[in-house]
Amino acid sequence: MTIPIDSVPNGTITSPRGFSAGGVFAGIKTPGAERLDIGLLFSEQPCAVAGTFSQNSVVSPTVTLTRQRVGPDKRVRAVVANSGCANTAVGAQGLIDARAMTELAAARLGVKADETLVCSTGVIGVEIPMALMREFIPRIKVTESGGNEYARAILTTDKRTKEIAVSFDAGGTTVTVGGVSKGSGMIHPNMATMLAFTTTDANVDPAFLQQILSDAVKLTFNQIDVDGDQSTNDTVLLMANGVAGGPVISGGDAVSEAFADAVLQVCRHLAIEIARDGEGATRLIEVTVEGARSEDDALRSSRECAASLLVKTAVYGRDPNWGRILMAIGKSQIPLDESKIDVYVNDIQIVFEGKAIAYNVQSVVSALGSAEVRLRVALNVGDGTGRAWGCDLTEEYVVFNSAYTT
Amino acid sequence: MTIPIDSVPNGTITSPRGFSAGGVFAGIKTPGAERLDIGLLFSEQPCAVAGTFSQNSVVSPTVTLTRQRVGPDKRVRAVVANSGCANTAVGAQGLIDARAMTELAAARLGVKADETLVCSTGVIGVEIPMALMREFIPRIKVTESGGNEYARAILTTDKRTKEIAVSFDAGGTTVTVGGVSKGSGMIHPNMATMLAFTTTDANVDPAFLQQILSDAVKLTFNQIDVDGDQSTNDTVLLMANGVAGGPVISGGDAVSEAFADAVLQVCRHLAIEIARDGEGATRLIEVTVEGARSEDDALRSSRECAASLLVKTAVYGRDPNWGRILMAIGKSQIPLDESKIDVYVNDIQIVFEGKAIAYNVQSVVSALGSAEVRLRVALNVGDGTGRAWGCDLTEEYVVFNSAYTT
Repeated sequence: MTIPIDSVPNGTITSPRGFSAGGVFAGIKTPGAERLDIGLLFSEQPCAVAGTFSQNSVVSPTVTLTRQRVGPDKRVRAVVANSGCANTAVGAQGLIDARAMTELAAARLGVKADETLVCSTGVIGVEIPMALMREFIPRIKVTESGGNEYARAILTTDKRTKEIAVSFDAGGTTVTVGGVSKGSGMIHPNMATMLAFTTTDANVDPAFLQQILSDAVKLTFNQIDVDGDQSTNDTVLLMANGVAGGPVISGGDAVSEAFADAVLQVCRHLAIEIARDGEGATRLIEVTVEGARSEDDALRSSRECAASLLVKTAVYGRDPNWGRILMAIGKSQIPLDESKIDVYVNDIQIVFEGKAIAYNVQSVVSALGSAEVRLRVALNVGDGTGRAWGCDLTEEYVVFNSAYTT
Repeated sequence: MTIPIDSVPNGTITSPRGFSAGGVFAGIKTPGAERLDIGLLFSEQPCAVAGTFSQNSVVSPTVTLTRQRVGPDKRVRAVVANSGCANTAVGAQGLIDARAMTELAAARLGVKADETLVCSTGVIGVEIPMALMREFIPRIKVTESGGNEYARAILTTDKRTKEIAVSFDAGGTTVTVGGVSKGSGMIHPNMATMLAFTTTDANVDPAFLQQILSDAVKLTFNQIDVDGDQSTNDTVLLMANGVAGGPVISGGDAVSEAFADAVLQVCRHLAIEIARDGEGATRLIEVTVEGARSEDDALRSSRECAASLLVKTAVYGRDPNWGRILMAIGKSQIPLDESKIDVYVNDIQIVFEGKAIAYNVQSVVSALGSAEVRLRVALNVGDGTGRAWGCDLTEEYVVFNSAYTT
């Protein structure tokens, strides 16, 4: 029997028991709506930890250090994260500073530095202002209601915080999974950085934890696109402190399935919110490819479609230009039969067996003006399904990323 | 000894001997500056022919038909090309119409239909207006000075024609290579299509011809980017009619090397002109990656960099945001050592061993305002070199591709 997953009202990263968090404004990032730029996340118990990291050949030393401290045999107690400076491309100083940040955070919380992870987001090529770190990290107060402070502290030019928590009944014990993310934003001419932190009070086998996270990331964070550029700092972490009690979750039963589903739901929400809040975006684009030869084909082609500039600009212009959709699916080079393809926009069919049908243009134009535009492409050559999320491309993206001449 | 290659003044696709061409306005494309939309290219002698085609899973039936008629055992006499309609995603009618177009062109020129190739560019999902084809193809006059008419007939919203010819002395015989291309343009909300046609009066072994073209395309047309989207109609053709006489060029000697170099020069010129004339573009961006572990690494990473939206917008904004350059090189996932990377903008060094140096910001801002911006990334981990070309991303690209709501 499938265990139902419930939404936690106003859920945050501190909704799971045993986690607390907080933030401070040290003056690292240009003050915008959010005057917080260092966040601290703390677990009262050691956590099993799983992570996925940027595949860019150039990565921040914070990624290098955090990756070393994540694994089935590792336990962590805390994360320190800052916005305003990516601590990337600064030479050997970067790793020294990343390590020092974890020492400051660990001292503040009374834990060990090697149980403390670090993430940074912001401008590349500038050293972390360590004097500010030394002054302000010791001032951060962590509380059980501090999840939202942490969410605000990691934002750059995101327009809103991205938070969620869900829970389910694991045989009499309530297990909660919480999460927070930040997406594409610029505080200075700079590339965007994606960070996501998820927590749970479940008692989870570490290897299973990594598998659950990797599976979820494949279907969520790896399926979103704002501008095709992959950050040097991308990090997703999942920390499980076991405070909820109960038997170890290690796969093969209904509780494990519910846990995996809960993590998937949290990751999906956080990923979609990043796409929705893409730079300059006015609309969320959801692309579903179904009937592909395999799930991988469907995932790959849906992502190509969500990432296509011509699809993004067509949605922005409310133009039912389905030729661009076929082009974008096709450029993934998956096997398909053009004469079997059906295309739908918000459930209105516009293409049948590879050719335009006599749809009502105005209704499709209206659908393309919705806050959420759902493009569905039925390939009808198999049973693989995949979904991806993007946003429209607007003049504002170009202005945002070009107008701030240093 | 290397044979020098000379530029042919006002060179066109009919500069090589034995080729003639012409165009007509049939009313297929929205009349813009160029009132020509069907072009005809004719060779007085049968040509050996080589081609490279779109790798998109969805391709135009014109690509399907032309690909069937290109190969080492095939000979061709003519090409008919139209702008204004891509003849793509129109079901079974597409192949019927493509074949009929070659029949009309062949009848006009007194050659066989199966020696005639066809290429189309324009809106997707709309059938070719065959009544116009039947009326206007028979009216096209081909002349030895008609290369420029053909160049104009294949344009969509390109701002200018893209033509070139070069020649060299093949042991007393002058061999000429000519070429024409079109790039990204919209005549209606639609994706762009890249077409290039090259001709030579050289006498070339067909298998060697294909090898020469494939090698050149790898270094030129496959290394340009306007918006990351791959057309369903992309086609590059090279036709060799042997009218110049002389021994068969088949590799392994100085004449073969000169021929390969001539083809490369023609392809490079045509490819760069497409990048320079990208939709909304104000500047050409040339990215050179040197010192990579291999040529493939250098080609791949230079292309990633030229295609990065954040690099494109930084150039547009004249922002020396070298973090974006490192990010874009790194997202190709090639092996590198960050601490060995040097970066130059129009020969001004801005990064040394992976870190910013104290460059004069204003001089770099000025360099980024040039019509041609050269980004050079020295990885210093090997001797592989590669080059790619793109253009800046401006608000005009977004407006162009979104504002034409159907």
